[in-house]
Amino acid sequence: MARNTQVPADHAAPPVTMRLAQFVATHPSRGWNDAVEHEAHRTLLNWFGCAIGAARHEAAEAALAAISALQPSPQATVLGREQRVDMASAALVNGITSHVFDFDDTHLKTIIHPAGPVAAALLALAEVRAAPGRGLVDALVLGIDVACRVGNAIYPDHYDRGWHITGSTGMLGAAAGCARLLGLDAQRTAMALGIAASQPTGLREQFGTMTKSLHPGAAARVGLMAALMAEHGFTASARALEAPRGLLQVVSPKHAWNELTDSLGERFEISYNSYKPFACGVVIHPCIDACAQLRARGVRADQVQRIELKVHSLVLELTGKKEPADGLQSKFSVYHGCAVGLIFGRATEDEFSDAIARRDDVVALRRKVTASVDDRIDEASADVVAVLTDGRSERVFVEHVLGSLHRPMTDADLAGKFHGLADPVLGSGRAESMIDALWETGRCGDARSLAGLARP
Amino acid sequence: MARNTQVPADHAAPPVTMRLAQFVATHPSRGWNDAVEHEAHRTLLNWFGCAIGAARHEAAEAALAAISALQPSPQATVLGREQRVDMASAALVNGITSHVFDFDDTHLKTIIHPAGPVAAALLALAEVRAAPGRGLVDALVLGIDVACRVGNAIYPDHYDRGWHITGSTGMLGAAAGCARLLGLDAQRTAMALGIAASQPTGLREQFGTMTKSLHPGAAARVGLMAALMAEHGFTASARALEAPRGLLQVVSPKHAWNELTDSLGERFEISYNSYKPFACGVVIHPCIDACAQLRARGVRADQVQRIELKVHSLVLELTGKKEPADGLQSKFSVYHGCAVGLIFGRATEDEFSDAIARRDDVVALRRKVTASVDDRIDEASADVVAVLTDGRSERVFVEHVLGSLHRPMTDADLAGKFHGLADPVLGSGRAESMIDALWETGRCGDARSLAGLARP
Repeated sequence: MARNTQVPADHAAPPVTMRLAQFVATHPSRGWNDAVEHEAHRTLLNWFGCAIGAARHEAAEAALAAISALQPSPQATVLGREQRVDMASAALVNGITSHVFDFDDTHLKTIIHPAGPVAAALLALAEVRAAPGRGLVDALVLGIDVACRVGNAIYPDHYDRGWHITGSTGMLGAAAGCARLLGLDAQRTAMALGIAASQPTGLREQFGTMTKSLHPGAAARVGLMAALMAEHGFTASARALEAPRGLLQVVSPKHAWNELTDSLGERFEISYNSYKPFACGVVIHPCIDACAQLRARGVRADQVQRIELKVHSLVLELTGKKEPADGLQSKFSVYHGCAVGLIFGRATEDEFSDAIARRDDVVALRRKVTASVDDRIDEASADVVAVLTDGRSERVFVEHVLGSLHRPMTDADLAGKFHGLADPVLGSGRAESMIDALWETGRCGDARSLAGLARP
Repeated sequence: MARNTQVPADHAAPPVTMRLAQFVATHPSRGWNDAVEHEAHRTLLNWFGCAIGAARHEAAEAALAAISALQPSPQATVLGREQRVDMASAALVNGITSHVFDFDDTHLKTIIHPAGPVAAALLALAEVRAAPGRGLVDALVLGIDVACRVGNAIYPDHYDRGWHITGSTGMLGAAAGCARLLGLDAQRTAMALGIAASQPTGLREQFGTMTKSLHPGAAARVGLMAALMAEHGFTASARALEAPRGLLQVVSPKHAWNELTDSLGERFEISYNSYKPFACGVVIHPCIDACAQLRARGVRADQVQRIELKVHSLVLELTGKKEPADGLQSKFSVYHGCAVGLIFGRATEDEFSDAIARRDDVVALRRKVTASVDDRIDEASADVVAVLTDGRSERVFVEHVLGSLHRPMTDADLAGKFHGLADPVLGSGRAESMIDALWETGRCGDARSLAGLARP
């Protein structure tokens, strides 16, 4: 009954639950610079695109079939579908779909995908409460700040222990954001954080299954419900994050408390958000990037005799599959990535389909790719030489891959990515309207209009 | 990207997820002896009583107010209330109410409160699917077996790390039970376990707040939804329990794999379930028990000069409050427990009300109680002497407290406890009908009738 924990408890942890709650409840609207404000809109645009693009994924179908057993009221939009469900279920499904292509955003310091839990919860709540866009953007910035700061405090030890950190910190971001959107005071915001803290989601063992995508969805749902429960007086510990038997000490041997509060309200973690240009693991992005650059220089597949890669060892360790048999396997083939990069100039979910993985010209080109390990090359870099049939050769050295903080996706890149995801679902005209509307979210009168645009 | 976990991973763990799934999916109906079958009915009777008794608790009001924001369909019964909500929300609320008085069942080997997550999920699902009572009882036994076997494998280390084990194993019991009730095959049952495994609930830091009671409720909800999602093809790892980054290795440094499969289908963990006679922490139960026995011998409060307790040191460490100011504090006062034991012969939620904690005769009697520590006395025992005003003294030595496996609550005790909880909500006639119906659950044609009886 009074045994000790294995890791010595830290009884001197600062009161970070309440400090974060005060911050979320009282930080002024748009209390940040233009770069932060713009990054919030980039985060939203990227997130909506991912969720809309995966609207008909089998994980969404299975989750919605289960939800339909609850006979949900048609409160909130499932992005990219006509169907509406109760707001908690909408948060769940939109969190799933935004992650299922592995194409969403990444807070590189912690590899948290922050929009999934936070934006999914906020959009559903904002739609039901007819919240103004300003409130949505404020809540997004603050919610992401909370999730990523918690991540900073426990990463990498927490991730190493086996937690999928997106789902095991995301419920706090969603709770914080929803508490802000609901206008809860600091005390009730602390209760929302506390209720959410008891419900972390996500084992890394699930990678490769639909449950990986459930993690951000479940975190969104938990956070939204935690805020609603706190609004109505449900109680939790006001030290749920920092106490010896609170979340951080229970799920991580590392707890850098200062990460939770250093420069709070001055440095915003959304500034460190990044967006994937390619729908696969980041390790093969530099090679795809290089081959797309070759294409932009005019190199055509039929001119290629061979392509020689020099890469970090992890590239072949994780994505060394020479002859991928289907679309899913092709995500683990640097050879396939190079082929589609050169042929299509991109590597969206479409380029990892079964059909493309088996297409003759793709198969032929990827067999011309050879790779060697050179550990002087960084994980974010690649050295690629195309030897052409006429004897010429073209070399591309990617130092900082597209999508990294050193070389971020431009706004135009993000709009192009959005089109690629949303056009097949909404049509390109509607997708264009949505892009325009999303850049203006902070000035939007009512978040319902965004949700409405995302229904086919 | 390829760091090591701090605790060496066990890559040789046996395939327990699939083994448990096969067991749950294929074990024959009523494949156990009469004692197990009877214990299942005792578990149900005790669980219904706790949930009905707390139907109007402020935690239920707050949770239902939040759920009402989802405009839930009226699918399933909230026990003790006229209101109906969607089945997942009913599982949540009935899990909360059954735990909020700290009066529910206890699997003593692990201090899991197994009925909360499992029965709450099953009742809601059975009501919506109009399942026969036989299926409900089968699913209850098997679901509790899964949750408690997982508990056996990780207790006490997992609990010591700070997890409220009821919520962090209960979602597996609820998923297993619901999968059984839905008739899922072993493969889909494994998926249900896997989906649930990613969603453990419960920090011990929450003790003393409503979120403690959320833990069994959230576990019930997670397990029910996991089974529904698996039914519709949602996927998870089939090694979600045992893999190096699966649940057990992530949340506990101890993993006694054999506990999951030893005598599976022969030994049933529900046989080790126990039921509290008093609505407070077990540590003061022996003293209350002793004072109730004094009362049964004819000792009246006005005859008492003093009461002398000899107890285990934990009793005063945890419940040494001399002058409790209100009902909640009185649960942490062995002196109050003795006073109500002698005056009322019982210690239900009523005897821990603000009014009783402040009543003159209760205050006067508890001031006559003195306690000394004697560590030769077991935690489950107490040595109590009442010295009377006429100079006589009466001694009661409780070796095995009422409610322990050595001295279980009788069926009549459980019926009496049920009346105490349900009569104020349903009336004694309806409560009596419910007791009769619950003893017959295994032969009940349709679980909806049980739920119907529990509505005022």
